[in-house]
Amino acid sequence: MPDSSAIRRVHNFSAGPATLPKSVLERAQAELLDYRGSGQSVMEMSHRSPVYDGIHRGLIDSLRRLLGLSAEYEVLLLQGGASLQFSMVPMNLLPAGQSADYVITGTWSKKALAEAEKVGSVRVAGTSAPTSFDRIPNALDPDPEAAYFHLTTNNTIAGTQWARLPSGTAPLILDASSDILSRPLDLTNVGMIYAGAQKNLGPAGLTLAIVRRDLLDRIPDGLPTMLDYRTQAGKGSLYNTPPCWAIYVAGLACEWIEGLGGLEAMETRNRGKADLIYSRLDRGGIYRGTVQTESRSLMNITFRLTDTTLEPRFLEEAADADLVNLKGHRSVGGIRASLYNAMPNSSVKELASFMDDFERSHG
Amino acid sequence: MPDSSAIRRVHNFSAGPATLPKSVLERAQAELLDYRGSGQSVMEMSHRSPVYDGIHRGLIDSLRRLLGLSAEYEVLLLQGGASLQFSMVPMNLLPAGQSADYVITGTWSKKALAEAEKVGSVRVAGTSAPTSFDRIPNALDPDPEAAYFHLTTNNTIAGTQWARLPSGTAPLILDASSDILSRPLDLTNVGMIYAGAQKNLGPAGLTLAIVRRDLLDRIPDGLPTMLDYRTQAGKGSLYNTPPCWAIYVAGLACEWIEGLGGLEAMETRNRGKADLIYSRLDRGGIYRGTVQTESRSLMNITFRLTDTTLEPRFLEEAADADLVNLKGHRSVGGIRASLYNAMPNSSVKELASFMDDFERSHG
Repeated sequence: MPDSSAIRRVHNFSAGPATLPKSVLERAQAELLDYRGSGQSVMEMSHRSPVYDGIHRGLIDSLRRLLGLSAEYEVLLLQGGASLQFSMVPMNLLPAGQSADYVITGTWSKKALAEAEKVGSVRVAGTSAPTSFDRIPNALDPDPEAAYFHLTTNNTIAGTQWARLPSGTAPLILDASSDILSRPLDLTNVGMIYAGAQKNLGPAGLTLAIVRRDLLDRIPDGLPTMLDYRTQAGKGSLYNTPPCWAIYVAGLACEWIEGLGGLEAMETRNRGKADLIYSRLDRGGIYRGTVQTESRSLMNITFRLTDTTLEPRFLEEAADADLVNLKGHRSVGGIRASLYNAMPNSSVKELASFMDDFERSHG
Repeated sequence: MPDSSAIRRVHNFSAGPATLPKSVLERAQAELLDYRGSGQSVMEMSHRSPVYDGIHRGLIDSLRRLLGLSAEYEVLLLQGGASLQFSMVPMNLLPAGQSADYVITGTWSKKALAEAEKVGSVRVAGTSAPTSFDRIPNALDPDPEAAYFHLTTNNTIAGTQWARLPSGTAPLILDASSDILSRPLDLTNVGMIYAGAQKNLGPAGLTLAIVRRDLLDRIPDGLPTMLDYRTQAGKGSLYNTPPCWAIYVAGLACEWIEGLGGLEAMETRNRGKADLIYSRLDRGGIYRGTVQTESRSLMNITFRLTDTTLEPRFLEEAADADLVNLKGHRSVGGIRASLYNAMPNSSVKELASFMDDFERSHG
């Protein structure tokens, strides 16, 4: 054990993998060699053992409670990230002879569309490409006969988020990788939710897929076993060895969310944190947001300095103040502050006050 | 931090996930909240950050050194387990119009064959099914024109292991999930090695794929991006977010192996541990091994009690002595002691002496 006074913790604004609750990390640390008297690390446990089963079911049950999932939804604990779901979704849920709707709001929805095009017939039902993804498109053109309607609920690179889900579409399939569990979700017409864990939920290496049971009936026979949702649905996500440690830490993170009051409390917290930064952007001065107000993300706040040549200096001085990973995605540049669930309010206050200080010295 | 005197550690003979070196767990524990002064947990780091890059490349370099891999091999850090490789191997490496050879030595090679049958033409080039998988088949019938020759190097359920790799075959594809890094590997004619990490290498959630570069030229275009080996080969296994924590712990485990002297030292250790148990089985008495001598696994030792009705009592008394997870796989019953790299010699001695004691009281 290190001298705890020597432990350093920075304010980590990474877009993912991202900061985790300190209490979750402390718990994982304390239990690392001996999970609750079992004499084993969670990393060493047979996935067929009763002690691991409690951890595994614990996460699934926690997700059910937090999201208010009825028995009509299967909760699958998978691997491969949202990137693998880009292919698994159409392989499983886009029957031959049907078409699927995709809304294009940035890099990730374009990738989802590209993988679906390899599998079957697709259609763009809305896009904000013409305005460089600075908003969620208002005008949608859903095909009522589509197999499903796919959208990315939050766009980490563009810094946009759907304020509410569209209606009048085929069953919604949501890539919620970057805002799952950050706010309550209206499940009306939601056919499926998928998410990599490494932003709001836990460490990388776990992918969540929540699928409405009636959609499983569409799955064609003959898919590779590991790519067929029915494989893990029929085995409680224990068909093969799951990513046990990531599942354990995600379970601790869900407990932490439940302890704080669930998704409504999370939304209030997340809105409060985002407002601390957006209020700076709205004041004018040296900062300007890159996103239309009504499409702003509570998770990833993207902005520029009016004098963009000052941006490297902004990032450098921020890092000197232990405010790290604030650089915008390499494809768009600028500044990005990611404020997922576990980002403490105190860290966001540090960033806001750094922005004020920087403005005073460079404005 | 818990009072370290309260920490309990059992002798964990699980077939996987399996025991990890205590020093590796202690290191992971010490660094959990602050990886070497970075102010972040490895679970929180951007996978695009220089600090994570050192961890990621560190594992790849360690694997290259340990296995003696030349530049003609790509080392890929994947997800999904060997079960996903059962499909990815033929999707990538079995061209239309060709056939692949499979040797059937138990449950896992049967599953690999079944997935390959969905993709293309396959052929059984050897099997020990007629003797209930009690040996590695002597008589092989390789097709010299085959696209590849697939075998499972170690069989966790049957308790068998290839003492040496066959020659005169098409390029070998090895499912080495349960004995990778446990002994030196002759790379002559090895086209690919794949392995889930959770036995000899680290925690579950990481899958290793080592592919000879010339085989990448066979891959057909149009595969789902995440299922095409070229995707991660072209991006240093950073196309999307990798399972960072599992990679980190596997890297610590590889450092531990290198510190002990590499794969030759591992083989000596592993042979010594296995001999402690096999010598009991060879003595006659109340135990009998289930595997032909020349096919015995150094990793998973399977045996029965002559009076099989005593087996539940054996397992119960063993567990009372903190010797846990000794039950044979549910498909075959009996006893199984898994002695992967990290299983300490002292734990195997405990098991051997428990076997002696049990024999004295019940023989």
